[in-house]
Amino acid sequence: MTGPLITFLSDYGLEDEFAGVCHAVIAGICPEARVIDLTHGIPRHDVRAGAMVLRSALPYLPMGIHLAVVDPDVGAERRAVAIATADDRVLVGPDNGLLSLAAAGSGGVVEAVDIARSPFRLEPLSATFHGRDIFAPVAARLAAGARLADAGEPIDPGDLVALELPRPRVEDGTLIARAVYIDGFGNVQLGVEHEELADTGLKLGRAVELELGTRSKHEAHFALTFADVEPDKLLVYEDAQRRLAVAVSHGSAATRLGIAVDDELRITPK
Amino acid sequence: MTGPLITFLSDYGLEDEFAGVCHAVIAGICPEARVIDLTHGIPRHDVRAGAMVLRSALPYLPMGIHLAVVDPDVGAERRAVAIATADDRVLVGPDNGLLSLAAAGSGGVVEAVDIARSPFRLEPLSATFHGRDIFAPVAARLAAGARLADAGEPIDPGDLVALELPRPRVEDGTLIARAVYIDGFGNVQLGVEHEELADTGLKLGRAVELELGTRSKHEAHFALTFADVEPDKLLVYEDAQRRLAVAVSHGSAATRLGIAVDDELRITPK
Amino acid sequence: MTGPLITFLSDYGLEDEFAGVCHAVIAGICPEARVIDLTHGIPRHDVRAGAMVLRSALPYLPMGIHLAVVDPDVGAERRAVAIATADDRVLVGPDNGLLSLAAAGSGGVVEAVDIARSPFRLEPLSATFHGRDIFAPVAARLAAGARLADAGEPIDPGDLVALELPRPRVEDGTLIARAVYIDGFGNVQLGVEHEELADTGLKLGRAVELELGTRSKHEAHFALTFADVEPDKLLVYEDAQRRLAVAVSHGSAATRLGIAVDDELRITPK
Repeated sequence: MTGPLITFLSDYGLEDEFAGVCHAVIAGICPEARVIDLTHGIPRHDVRAGAMVLRSALPYLPMGIHLAVVDPDVGAERRAVAIATADDRVLVGPDNGLLSLAAAGSGGVVEAVDIARSPFRLEPLSATFHGRDIFAPVAARLAAGARLADAGEPIDPGDLVALELPRPRVEDGTLIARAVYIDGFGNVQLGVEHEELADTGLKLGRAVELELGTRSKHEAHFALTFADVEPDKLLVYEDAQRRLAVAVSHGSAATRLGIAVDDELRITPK
Repeated sequence: MTGPLITFLSDYGLEDEFAGVCHAVIAGICPEARVIDLTHGIPRHDVRAGAMVLRSALPYLPMGIHLAVVDPDVGAERRAVAIATADDRVLVGPDNGLLSLAAAGSGGVVEAVDIARSPFRLEPLSATFHGRDIFAPVAARLAAGARLADAGEPIDPGDLVALELPRPRVEDGTLIARAVYIDGFGNVQLGVEHEELADTGLKLGRAVELELGTRSKHEAHFALTFADVEPDKLLVYEDAQRRLAVAVSHGSAATRLGIAVDDELRITPK
Repeated sequence: MTGPLITFLSDYGLEDEFAGVCHAVIAGICPEARVIDLTHGIPRHDVRAGAMVLRSALPYLPMGIHLAVVDPDVGAERRAVAIATADDRVLVGPDNGLLSLAAAGSGGVVEAVDIARSPFRLEPLSATFHGRDIFAPVAARLAAGARLADAGEPIDPGDLVALELPRPRVEDGTLIARAVYIDGFGNVQLGVEHEELADTGLKLGRAVELELGTRSKHEAHFALTFADVEPDKLLVYEDAQRRLAVAVSHGSAATRLGIAVDDELRITPK
């Protein structure tokens, strides 16, 4: 009864019509497709942030076509690709690492095609808006039932660009990790996965010392949720993406700590 | 022919994928549901603003499930609820007052269930993202036809948290009211309802004096619409939610007056 | 199988519920309509920006009803209109020029009605939210199959308000044009159309000098796309709307040049 699903993530923002025009292009090609906007608020040109959001969201997305566009090198030599994963998902976007984390989290890539000259693309092709002219129309045609092999030229999945995330380390009992994402509430996500938590020595309910470079030290608690500390107090917690994070209850940790993505944090149990 | 309707309001913003992931969760559970985003721009953690927007919008919403998440105390003791109103609407969200004004405006609550441990929730349950793990899946299951009684444990509607809005008063011919909401155009809504206007002594077309604390006095006109005064002039008017408001024609009253939510205004007919 | 299409553009922003309530009104009147948000991020009250975005997007929009609301004079004497174009599109919005560029680009207006007192409007009519009370319900009724002639009183298409865009000129080999739109990436669109490019003397791949008033001179290249220059370098290019534009590769030209809409730029081949 219901049509195919396309999810859509980008750094286009919503002030401009870029995302809206891609929706319109999809509706023209595959009117029965349903398009869910994951977000268009990825920080401009931040491929890693887009890749992390897509990977974290993927387990919650129904099977379908997952369109993603964060593309600072549009028009340059980077490839445009559509890929199929072992878990039967199809990802469409630039080959700059944006799709790589989600693909790895979906069992890895089993088939990939270069869609830069896809027969499904719009003509005339613009030099700067491949979301509208390549990625959206290819996603729409795939949603309408076209085969991946017909969307472009086959390429070796092993040649796709892969992202490396910063890894945490433990020195003298201190966990050292980088801020990898800051959300709109000012919660600061660190590059520490659920599986890595056991090795950090952090214990739920205990106080920790947070150190930001040599700039400042702060007391925090390793807690389950915001409400476990008083309003305006700092907490370290495992967030909804199962990644370690720093927050201020009823406030913004990013503002409080003056922290930016890629900053290094040192967390020591007290 | 058309599926069930869910409306969705939150303070998630659109920079992050929070609202998008909730859409995806709903699509996975009830693909035929149509979801209308009322807004995700409620000021962060501002339960009262969310409650007012939901109440004002409700008369314009088709019958359906009304999902609302402004939840500063997620993970704390606040209850998660789904409620049915006398006018046959179903509201889903945290029990912090967010739903209370809309429920009252829809004939009052006739049935309520605590959904914190709903059989419809997602597992594993995160401590910080109940929109994704509790509220969206419960709304989706109810849209798909599940009975409210099956969504959680029954609770007494009289025990639900209710919000109190600041009420206006008239002293010596001066109307004293608080700013309760400021929209994106900078229009300042006051806590004065249509039904209370008759007692204020304001007369359409007449000049009034606006006083903001002891800080400043301004001349304005009580007008029907922006165009009734010159560009850049202040007006007091009954807004589209039938609440008294202050605006600047072609401009921002919030910026002009330096006014914030909860500030007290004094309005005196001249 | 799929329902009628409505596209929706406005300056309502997404912080407030204005666009969401219009969606809800449409869903109540024509549940089978699909609504695509083109953008709600048109700068507040900027009729010309809205008109330009609508015109540029139109060729990518499936046939349907095109709802547009940028309406600084809501409640004043400006007319509310629904118009049919020679290319069989229907546009609905205020008669302040917002629809005029799109209409011209769609073959011109063949029928127009004044919908201020449309039988399709909502009652009671607010003085300030005609998007909800007039434009959205009229668009929904037209999507549901109502005839344009039944939506309002016929008016002479020649009486509709038309916008004039600033035109470029060439003096002593220097192209002089105005900034007409700045997108969220900080790319600056100039009032120079594809058809006018041939007369400018600009040659692809060549250096040009950019002059902003008497304030500053900058070196740039006339290039095909961002990637044709080094990161942080200025380029002049034909953008995806086929209009001349200025950008900084991986950066913001608006910030770099301190340029605002309506500023005059002088571009001289070197």
